[in-house]
Amino acid sequence: MKKPSDSRAPAQVSRRAMLAASTAALGLAGTRAAQAEQKPLTVSEWATQLGRPVDDHAYGVPSKFEAGVIRRRVDWLTATAESSVAFTPLAALEGIITPNGLGFIRDHGGTPDIDPAQHRLVIEGLVEKPLIFTLEDIKRFPRVNRIHFCECAANSAMENNGPQMQAVQYSHGMVHNAMYTGVLLKTLLEAVGLKPNAKYVMPEGGDASGLTRTIPLDKALDDCMIAYNMNGEALHPGHGYPMRLVVPGWQANMWVKWIRRIKVGDEPFMTHEETAKYTSLMKDGRSRMFTWPMDAKSVITSPAPEAPWMSKGQNVISGIAWSGRGTIKQVDVSLDGGKNWVKAQIEGPVLPFSMVRFYVNTDWNGDELLLQSRAHDNTGYVQPTKNMLRAIRGRSFNYHNNGIQTWQVRKIGEVNNVEVS
Amino acid sequence: MKKPSDSRAPAQVSRRAMLAASTAALGLAGTRAAQAEQKPLTVSEWATQLGRPVDDHAYGVPSKFEAGVIRRRVDWLTATAESSVAFTPLAALEGIITPNGLGFIRDHGGTPDIDPAQHRLVIEGLVEKPLIFTLEDIKRFPRVNRIHFCECAANSAMENNGPQMQAVQYSHGMVHNAMYTGVLLKTLLEAVGLKPNAKYVMPEGGDASGLTRTIPLDKALDDCMIAYNMNGEALHPGHGYPMRLVVPGWQANMWVKWIRRIKVGDEPFMTHEETAKYTSLMKDGRSRMFTWPMDAKSVITSPAPEAPWMSKGQNVISGIAWSGRGTIKQVDVSLDGGKNWVKAQIEGPVLPFSMVRFYVNTDWNGDELLLQSRAHDNTGYVQPTKNMLRAIRGRSFNYHNNGIQTWQVRKIGEVNNVEVS
Repeated sequence: MKKPSDSRAPAQVSRRAMLAASTAALGLAGTRAAQAEQKPLTVSEWATQLGRPVDDHAYGVPSKFEAGVIRRRVDWLTATAESSVAFTPLAALEGIITPNGLGFIRDHGGTPDIDPAQHRLVIEGLVEKPLIFTLEDIKRFPRVNRIHFCECAANSAMENNGPQMQAVQYSHGMVHNAMYTGVLLKTLLEAVGLKPNAKYVMPEGGDASGLTRTIPLDKALDDCMIAYNMNGEALHPGHGYPMRLVVPGWQANMWVKWIRRIKVGDEPFMTHEETAKYTSLMKDGRSRMFTWPMDAKSVITSPAPEAPWMSKGQNVISGIAWSGRGTIKQVDVSLDGGKNWVKAQIEGPVLPFSMVRFYVNTDWNGDELLLQSRAHDNTGYVQPTKNMLRAIRGRSFNYHNNGIQTWQVRKIGEVNNVEVS
Repeated sequence: MKKPSDSRAPAQVSRRAMLAASTAALGLAGTRAAQAEQKPLTVSEWATQLGRPVDDHAYGVPSKFEAGVIRRRVDWLTATAESSVAFTPLAALEGIITPNGLGFIRDHGGTPDIDPAQHRLVIEGLVEKPLIFTLEDIKRFPRVNRIHFCECAANSAMENNGPQMQAVQYSHGMVHNAMYTGVLLKTLLEAVGLKPNAKYVMPEGGDASGLTRTIPLDKALDDCMIAYNMNGEALHPGHGYPMRLVVPGWQANMWVKWIRRIKVGDEPFMTHEETAKYTSLMKDGRSRMFTWPMDAKSVITSPAPEAPWMSKGQNVISGIAWSGRGTIKQVDVSLDGGKNWVKAQIEGPVLPFSMVRFYVNTDWNGDELLLQSRAHDNTGYVQPTKNMLRAIRGRSFNYHNNGIQTWQVRKIGEVNNVEVS
């Protein structure tokens, strides 16, 4: 092998030389034999001319070569574009922070552009002193910073009836993970003073849908937050600007966006979104309701059907896991559809009600694989198979599908959404 | 006080009613007496009409009401717009994650738009097998996820000669904090095999400036990374897309962006950027060079000169601290220019070579304040005053100014950049 030169030749490196270089590098990375002579490292066009001026008065966005890494709707899935969902592009993401511009958005009445100076939050009901807060008022209270996942109860709903779309963006993309800054709801409830018979709170959204849900007081006083910043900056409009409720570990529709009101009561409020909607029809015809926490779940995000596919040699299998009942303790990965499991490496912060990132480094010989992942949380709960869920709930439930997902890796590296029995 | 009603009246709440509501809320938050009768909570325009359709095929951006929260250049500071810096808007940020679109950018030859399929990284010099890596090759190696601050050596340079611009964005905005995903440099150096006499590595940028620096092998084998994702998504072009070096705790110009080459040698490379530049002229006329780690530093980001200013009653003093020698252990805050100090609350993750967020909750009576913060790290180092630095280094140094910053809060709440002796 020739040693690469540091001389700066003006010509672009040829496609053939690039392929040769790539092959050689892979080989020496321990996965392939060096097969071709390397050309000297040549200098690219961007090293021979000035780049763009440094962004001034700009909000930075990704490279034009990442234009495919975006949120996507599935228009046949929902009745209108205002009551819809745009999914997180999980296959392109790494680590545990979801950028705000890519985290899934589910609206029931469209995304309002709320003027923060006009916005108010009222806390009323079974309280000593009902209060109206401005955003500035809220920012006067002690702040906390917490990293939490937010998952729609309907995430993976379609998958309950067998493999659906060819993309982890659609099968699992109604989840994101971010650092929230705000005030604990407990602090605000102490400011208004709870009456002795207070047992539940009902957050209400300030948008056209005015979404309402019931939250038991224990949870409200534990770790719920009124958040105004997400990953450092102000919440984006689609995430609830200027303020949203954060209900760690519990289903995303309780994380009321654009929150305008919290009513304190002594019994569940039985709102539209927890009676007509967000209930799960069971096998015996009855419905589960108030299914608040999201059970432990995981999914492999790379490889995934929408790329990158695998190629022979050394590959990193990368995925995410989370649990609404606490902290992820372990993730297992199977290469053969659940017959054998290896313990994945959890890499990066492990925090309550937060995603973790897991990896399995593998040397692929090109044989077909059936990739699965399985999460364990600190309550001892283990992520079930889809069939284990169906044995209890049947095939009609749309919410809380945390069944194990399978990706088939074909000999050519192509990845398909499949199911194994 | 009237209890706010939940009836949805079509009219917009009046400005007078809003003021009344705001005052009342503040009062009951423990800071002011309720002075005015509240009007019933009325319904805003965004609750009476559908919002925008859910973003489809879009990269989300902040609210139009946050249009002022952007990176900003200071055009008189640098010779060209390509060799310049755009500062982080620290006053508007919270928690410890800097969004990629807002993290400061310092380029020496403009921002290139590199095609990742064309990009190569070569490792050569005192190695057994020089190798050329594609981005895909790099992604085949085991991954790590680490949250680190990145601070330009010239951050706060202007402040050495007394208070300069009226904004924390300019005085301290050449720092950001993010989660990086990539491969440890150690892993790649093991793949090429180091020769016994290897002692230093020299990263080189693939842009027009071709920036080069010397890094001792111990650091390279410790915690340096070749990162390709930042806060989950691919690095933005201004942050080094498709790959950059991460040198935890050390000055940002060593974090070579668009990295194309790592040369291994047996002595320091004495490059332009570590001899003619990035050295600090001392009082006695000699220069300090190879000033790699960034010493412990902190600054109050809110209140700050560019708002929000303080108003009487309960206020949260919010700031950030970091140390390039380890982990922040403590932050003190003074309200009187350093005469008395209180221990701030560190809230959120505390990680090596990462920012922490600190708070002091205070009840302001309207008297003038001189706000300062002072960081301690786990080596026992305490952030010095500017005068302590000047006693040793004089007034000519441009790099590594980690002196204590002072904000004067005037009786009207206005915040000024000042210095106390």
